[in-house]
Amino acid sequence: MNTMTDLPTRPLSARILPVPFCAAMTALLATRFTLSLPVREHHGKDESPFGIIPPDAVAFAKTTEEVAAIMRLCAEHGVPLIPFGAGTSIEGHFLAPHGGVSLDLSGMNEVIAVHPEDLTVTVQAGVLRKQLNEEIKHSGLFFPIDPGADASIGGMCATRASGTNAVRYQTMRENVLALTVVTPEGKIIHTGTRARKSSAGYDLTRVYIGSEGTLGIITEITLRVYPQPEAISAAVCAFPTMAAAVQTVIETIQMGVPIARVEFVDALSIKAINLHDKLTLAEMPTLFFEFHGSDNGVKEQAETVQQIVVENGGHDFEWATHPEDRKKLWNARHNAYFAVLQLKPGCVAVVTDVCVPISRLAECVTATDVDIQASSLPCPIVGHVGDGNFHVIILVDPNKPEERIEAERINANIVARALAMEGTCTGEHGIGMHKMGFLQTEHGDDALDVMRAIKRALDPQNLLNPGKIFALN
Amino acid sequence: MNTMTDLPTRPLSARILPVPFCAAMTALLATRFTLSLPVREHHGKDESPFGIIPPDAVAFAKTTEEVAAIMRLCAEHGVPLIPFGAGTSIEGHFLAPHGGVSLDLSGMNEVIAVHPEDLTVTVQAGVLRKQLNEEIKHSGLFFPIDPGADASIGGMCATRASGTNAVRYQTMRENVLALTVVTPEGKIIHTGTRARKSSAGYDLTRVYIGSEGTLGIITEITLRVYPQPEAISAAVCAFPTMAAAVQTVIETIQMGVPIARVEFVDALSIKAINLHDKLTLAEMPTLFFEFHGSDNGVKEQAETVQQIVVENGGHDFEWATHPEDRKKLWNARHNAYFAVLQLKPGCVAVVTDVCVPISRLAECVTATDVDIQASSLPCPIVGHVGDGNFHVIILVDPNKPEERIEAERINANIVARALAMEGTCTGEHGIGMHKMGFLQTEHGDDALDVMRAIKRALDPQNLLNPGKIFALN
Repeated sequence: MNTMTDLPTRPLSARILPVPFCAAMTALLATRFTLSLPVREHHGKDESPFGIIPPDAVAFAKTTEEVAAIMRLCAEHGVPLIPFGAGTSIEGHFLAPHGGVSLDLSGMNEVIAVHPEDLTVTVQAGVLRKQLNEEIKHSGLFFPIDPGADASIGGMCATRASGTNAVRYQTMRENVLALTVVTPEGKIIHTGTRARKSSAGYDLTRVYIGSEGTLGIITEITLRVYPQPEAISAAVCAFPTMAAAVQTVIETIQMGVPIARVEFVDALSIKAINLHDKLTLAEMPTLFFEFHGSDNGVKEQAETVQQIVVENGGHDFEWATHPEDRKKLWNARHNAYFAVLQLKPGCVAVVTDVCVPISRLAECVTATDVDIQASSLPCPIVGHVGDGNFHVIILVDPNKPEERIEAERINANIVARALAMEGTCTGEHGIGMHKMGFLQTEHGDDALDVMRAIKRALDPQNLLNPGKIFALN
Repeated sequence: MNTMTDLPTRPLSARILPVPFCAAMTALLATRFTLSLPVREHHGKDESPFGIIPPDAVAFAKTTEEVAAIMRLCAEHGVPLIPFGAGTSIEGHFLAPHGGVSLDLSGMNEVIAVHPEDLTVTVQAGVLRKQLNEEIKHSGLFFPIDPGADASIGGMCATRASGTNAVRYQTMRENVLALTVVTPEGKIIHTGTRARKSSAGYDLTRVYIGSEGTLGIITEITLRVYPQPEAISAAVCAFPTMAAAVQTVIETIQMGVPIARVEFVDALSIKAINLHDKLTLAEMPTLFFEFHGSDNGVKEQAETVQQIVVENGGHDFEWATHPEDRKKLWNARHNAYFAVLQLKPGCVAVVTDVCVPISRLAECVTATDVDIQASSLPCPIVGHVGDGNFHVIILVDPNKPEERIEAERINANIVARALAMEGTCTGEHGIGMHKMGFLQTEHGDDALDVMRAIKRALDPQNLLNPGKIFALN
């Protein structure tokens, strides 16, 4: 099984890229092609605990046509190419174990078209999700998918991201209408139209969503967006036990309440959030709720959920109805990752990401809690529990190999339990380099062979983001 | 461009299947493998105007393991295999232009597991959608995807079907969690788990959904199901013009009203429905609405829509709140296809299926109406207009080639217009043999090459449903 403890890291020295390749790249991009070590290191370090595995060069693209030209040069010279969005991966997605060029798409940050009348937008891949919401706010629209980090839309496609709003608005899989993709041959294809649905041939859009940059380079995306709800209200609610909180979520989902967000934050994470955000939340297992709808609809949803909360022994709702209070609350939730890192100065995190059928969630979280109570490592838990998805953030001293081994042991236990419960090893973070072993366990060799056949067919030279998701042989 | 007028049909005589193949199939299936001409003809005739293009034999499978064994025999002897569900295709999906064996999955009709606590069910591919809803009714659940015909769940996956409820509940693409698939090598793979979301590797589920039986044989499906709404109400509403009706839909969608169904039926179709179902609806452009939610929520949605209706000059709502009235209403809508066929005794239908961004819908439908008014053929229009999807049912005398040519001319015009409006040639019916030319126009050669590469990689012998979706070279 591949884990962070047995993966090779590459030396920091540059691979010898072919001179004619470098010359052609420089002719194409001038100073936007660089061999600079600090730039390479920045593109070889993510939020995973892998350390730095830098590419041999970095190229900054501005247009789809430039990406195609870069891809053709890489194909001609056999140089690997690794798409890079906002750098928020926690699974080693854009590290460069085979060297090659990191393709930085952050300069492709234009919102190309906003169609409020169709509830669609088209963006370049480097547009960040917060930027997008800022730019469409005045149109009365919003894009709900929110993985916490201010990720790029292209990166969110590549990892099939989701986050806090997925319980109502689903994931990137369901919210992308069409992609512009550069193929490994350097051709530009369009995978769909602006129609809301289509049965026209293979679902190429979904072939690329979640392919982690290994099949093609996503350069433009047409998204579904939504009218801003007439009413939004948010609340936090503390529970005597983790099980009581999770049971509340299960019953809420089973009732079909169209809740927009329901997030679990354990007592340890609340403690960290209080320190980090200067809040005074009760340091107990807590749910964060958000309701979207008409004024009456929101009231009705909240009443239904409050009743379920009472039956499960939860405390009173603390409401955040004003936009600034809501913002503060959700900032606190989104800061949970950085807040818990401060519980152990100098630490890195191994983050689990299992997702199970909702009815198994209480059992899964409770058994996980037994595991982590038995560990010497701090392991705060947060989760998009409405989807059956939760994260254990295992805090590790990067200088103590035994802690990394312990973290991977806990991770492996959690994954094995989730798979036994008909769940998945990753709800939203992707495989990257970290979960390749888990993917094999989850899908089996024959399904993995189908994935390999697709990879070989579309990228026969294995140029795009090599060494990710699965071994090719 | 491939149209029904220039496609070859095969003679009714049986291809000479290899004797050892037939012997092995008979050893496996006994009388469930047959060369009978009537059975072959039944499996070589759909709702399209192609006429009969029968397979050389028909196999009736009962289990996934049997399907795998059949597939292995076909692979060994180079015999094409064509999955067959409920036979409701209107695009020639399961006709046999290359001969081979039709694999009838109607005997795989077991609902394998119902998980009300997770809102999932697992079924064999031959389960029919009405049967499924009957079997889960007592659990308080329903499966919303409703293409009108009583299609099989496997067939609905294969064509990426949708229908009247898609405006709220989306399509098969969004409502399938996992598939069991038999590969062209005869291996059995599982493409997902019962978790609501996953980022674990390539989205194999979506690779097979919409692949029309050309990449693998779907034998089992895990679906999302939904709690039956607390309240449901339905209404019909007549409009002075087609444009007024469509404008009402556009504004309803743009407002974000979570309407469950909104169907357009033109005056000619209403006339046919009145005759067929003995109703007395006003013979005018009409919308059929359905609202799902809480009692208050349904009331609120209906009030919002009624206001939009009034602003667009629509008539008063005729309500159908009792289940039996609703059933009558939706039966009438679903019977529209068969009702309009009776407008022209002995006719066959060429059915268009374009889907455009909602803001272009009024323009698209109005321009289409000009086209069809100029034609001598009766062309009733119905549509899932909340998705931007509508069907022109062009009624053709099968004995008059000039009528078929005229129908294809109208179809081609409608598709060209939809593509120019950033729409798709098929919202839900699929490509089959009928729309292969349109697919090429819509996607372009480079995107089609990606589809071809996937087909060649997964089915190198081109055994699965050959001659569909695209030409391989």
